[in-house]
Amino acid sequence: MSRHEPKGIRQEQFLDVVSRDEAEARFSRHLKLEPLGEEMVGLGECRGRVLARDVAARVDVPGFDRSNVDGFAVRAEDLVGARPDAPRRLALSGELLTPGVRPTRELKPGAATPIATGGMIPRGADAVVMIETTDPVGDAAVDVRQAIASGAAISSTGSDIAAGETVLRRGVVLASRDIALLAAIGESAVAVFRKPRVAILSTGDELVAPGAPIRPGQVFDSNGPMLAAAVAELGCAAIPLGIVGDDFQRMADMIDSALAAADVVLLSGGTSKGAGDVAYRAVERFSDPGVVVHGVALKPGKPLCLAVTQGKPVVILPGFPTSATFTFHEFVAPALRAFAGLPPLRRATRSARLPVKLKSEYGRTTYTLVSLAESADGGLVAYPMGKGSGAVTEFSLADGFFATPPGVEAVPAGAEVSVTLIGRAREPADLMMIGSHCVGLDMLISRLAREGLNVKVLSVGSTANATSPASI
Amino acid sequence: MSRHEPKGIRQEQFLDVVSRDEAEARFSRHLKLEPLGEEMVGLGECRGRVLARDVAARVDVPGFDRSNVDGFAVRAEDLVGARPDAPRRLALSGELLTPGVRPTRELKPGAATPIATGGMIPRGADAVVMIETTDPVGDAAVDVRQAIASGAAISSTGSDIAAGETVLRRGVVLASRDIALLAAIGESAVAVFRKPRVAILSTGDELVAPGAPIRPGQVFDSNGPMLAAAVAELGCAAIPLGIVGDDFQRMADMIDSALAAADVVLLSGGTSKGAGDVAYRAVERFSDPGVVVHGVALKPGKPLCLAVTQGKPVVILPGFPTSATFTFHEFVAPALRAFAGLPPLRRATRSARLPVKLKSEYGRTTYTLVSLAESADGGLVAYPMGKGSGAVTEFSLADGFFATPPGVEAVPAGAEVSVTLIGRAREPADLMMIGSHCVGLDMLISRLAREGLNVKVLSVGSTANATSPASI
Repeated sequence: MSRHEPKGIRQEQFLDVVSRDEAEARFSRHLKLEPLGEEMVGLGECRGRVLARDVAARVDVPGFDRSNVDGFAVRAEDLVGARPDAPRRLALSGELLTPGVRPTRELKPGAATPIATGGMIPRGADAVVMIETTDPVGDAAVDVRQAIASGAAISSTGSDIAAGETVLRRGVVLASRDIALLAAIGESAVAVFRKPRVAILSTGDELVAPGAPIRPGQVFDSNGPMLAAAVAELGCAAIPLGIVGDDFQRMADMIDSALAAADVVLLSGGTSKGAGDVAYRAVERFSDPGVVVHGVALKPGKPLCLAVTQGKPVVILPGFPTSATFTFHEFVAPALRAFAGLPPLRRATRSARLPVKLKSEYGRTTYTLVSLAESADGGLVAYPMGKGSGAVTEFSLADGFFATPPGVEAVPAGAEVSVTLIGRAREPADLMMIGSHCVGLDMLISRLAREGLNVKVLSVGSTANATSPASI
Repeated sequence: MSRHEPKGIRQEQFLDVVSRDEAEARFSRHLKLEPLGEEMVGLGECRGRVLARDVAARVDVPGFDRSNVDGFAVRAEDLVGARPDAPRRLALSGELLTPGVRPTRELKPGAATPIATGGMIPRGADAVVMIETTDPVGDAAVDVRQAIASGAAISSTGSDIAAGETVLRRGVVLASRDIALLAAIGESAVAVFRKPRVAILSTGDELVAPGAPIRPGQVFDSNGPMLAAAVAELGCAAIPLGIVGDDFQRMADMIDSALAAADVVLLSGGTSKGAGDVAYRAVERFSDPGVVVHGVALKPGKPLCLAVTQGKPVVILPGFPTSATFTFHEFVAPALRAFAGLPPLRRATRSARLPVKLKSEYGRTTYTLVSLAESADGGLVAYPMGKGSGAVTEFSLADGFFATPPGVEAVPAGAEVSVTLIGRAREPADLMMIGSHCVGLDMLISRLAREGLNVKVLSVGSTANATSPASI
């Protein structure tokens, strides 16, 4: 620290780099990784919310013995021996049991009551004969051509759901068919976990909000909108706080008001070893415990800062888009899932072959983002995206990534790697284009895409021969 | 039709049953299966929406040649031959290029400008040396211990995204990483397909809204809340219209106002061969073309009614919950996806063994809902839910279904069936309970579920020996 350095071009003076697992352990040691509370929401608003309590039915479904067909409610014993050539004649009871009608009379022996699908079985009846097996006899009687078992064509009380039965369990993300169950047992509102509130602040003098005028040297803030959406994808409520420049007092004030309004505070930018240490200094104020990790042996993502204050996570994600996204998904998303009441994510993996030799960072866990294509032998080939963590397309257009542990210098060409899939499950490409971007090709690809072809484009530039198709 | 029938217990007088495929063909022949329009939405509101147009970048990303490291912007040719034991000394230019700062001077030969990660490369410079390979010499110069290639540690203008490049294509459901791309190219709003508006009306004198008091013979409306949520799951806006009784004029008025407000009108109930033909008569009024299908050779789902008026689908789904859900997913969901701009759904299937013999309906495509468990040999076993289309749990708790074509009387025990998965991808059960419902077991299962065990319960009642574990 005694070396002279140009102001703003410090080396990693704050970083005390720890392993990925150590970082995670230190962070979670200071967090209570459980739901933050619950609230009641109406059936019309509960879709996508996480059920906070087991739900047991307070009623039977159906709530009465119900006819499953159109026909006549009967006593099965009255029809013993009925055959097409020897039908039994039953007297009509005088009632008509359409759905919603409550029977007023007990069915007498030798009688039948017309009943519609969904109708309530009268006392005394124990079966329903389908209208197709009957013949009317004037207005007062019916001939039944078939014998029938007791219970036939009846759904008995509670046979779908019995009162007291648990129909849904805590932790379920409510979808339409769960809502059908809740409605069927008469629940008009349900206890769900409260959405964790996540404040999002982008830091850096160079940032400009999308849509605003931009000058050379400035960049549009992509981390802020990305994080707001990613947080919502995890069942949390984003509180977007916009952009703050490298001004200590403003940054400290913003963080303090974010802590008052939110359960989690996410900053991005400002952990670079460059000028942007302002955010770090603003977070360094806390000591309960405050910063627990600053620097993780990851590539990308090394300058990550994890802090906890008032029991709330305060995280400074790296400013580079891919680094920010990776560290968000590795360290922040699991905590948000726990706060939201969601189970840990089980990510799907696919085995694929690396077509090129790839250097790795010896001292760090290295993540390589890839695009997947099918090879001639039907297996998958994983093409490195090749743009680096500063590129927003590196993560946004990738199909997945694989990790190389510390202590590896390079992964040889042809190696099998286990690719963790990200984002929507993309199909392997029908056609993959690797090379310089071309506007004419763009038009062609849009046409092919509309015709259902899955085309992927890796615009790696004309010099990127390391990933040219010739090297497959 | 000349037979005498008790009022309200008609036989299938309206039904003119057609095959599943014929029903689909007749329905889609009268529909324009494409998005209904587009609208602009802000970046903060576009998550989950469907992109209506290809988006091409109007700017380069990065918008300038950018440093990827902390160090010094240099001319690579000035460092030819630099080694640790023979460093080159460069004069500091006097500028400091932190992110967002626009360089004011051209870099002269023999000079270096301190630059931070994300800083803009000054004219004249063609590479950045990392600070780790340098030593300061007072305030005015720096020694560089390493030679460097032209372009090193620089991301050149447009290397991430080139102006004119198509970054996202029409039809993408926007997720966080797509939003990152849009933000990075400075777009603050985006054209998405308008959400189809779907009016939902439950019909039947027996229906009661969840939460309201219920009398014997009445049932809670589960189709209305289920359909509102299912429609939202398909990217549509539900217009819940509640419950209407079997009153022709009120029903007709409701349908007319629904048609004025919505793009699609969904009724449920009222197509039963029982009393509820009021909805059918209210839809039968239309003749442009009006009803195109009434009755499909499906089990469940036979009484489905498909109509089109003013170019808008008007569908009467069967009242039984499972029949309503099935016919919704088979006939309505594909149309809603097309109106919303979503691609056809590709449903995942799993092969499983049927543990019991199963009767099929000879004249109809029969769908059997199943719960999946792993068998001793590692394969999957598909247990029929066994509750029938009147049960809400039949569909809501199933893992999937398989179809038996018309012309089959029974599927033998041990047969391999192809199960189409539904709802959230459920894992095969670790433990499956089949039998009568038991409140004590419920408590045990909730405990096991919290400990991460996947337990499924088929409360089929004590008489349901057809699906008892003994018959696996």
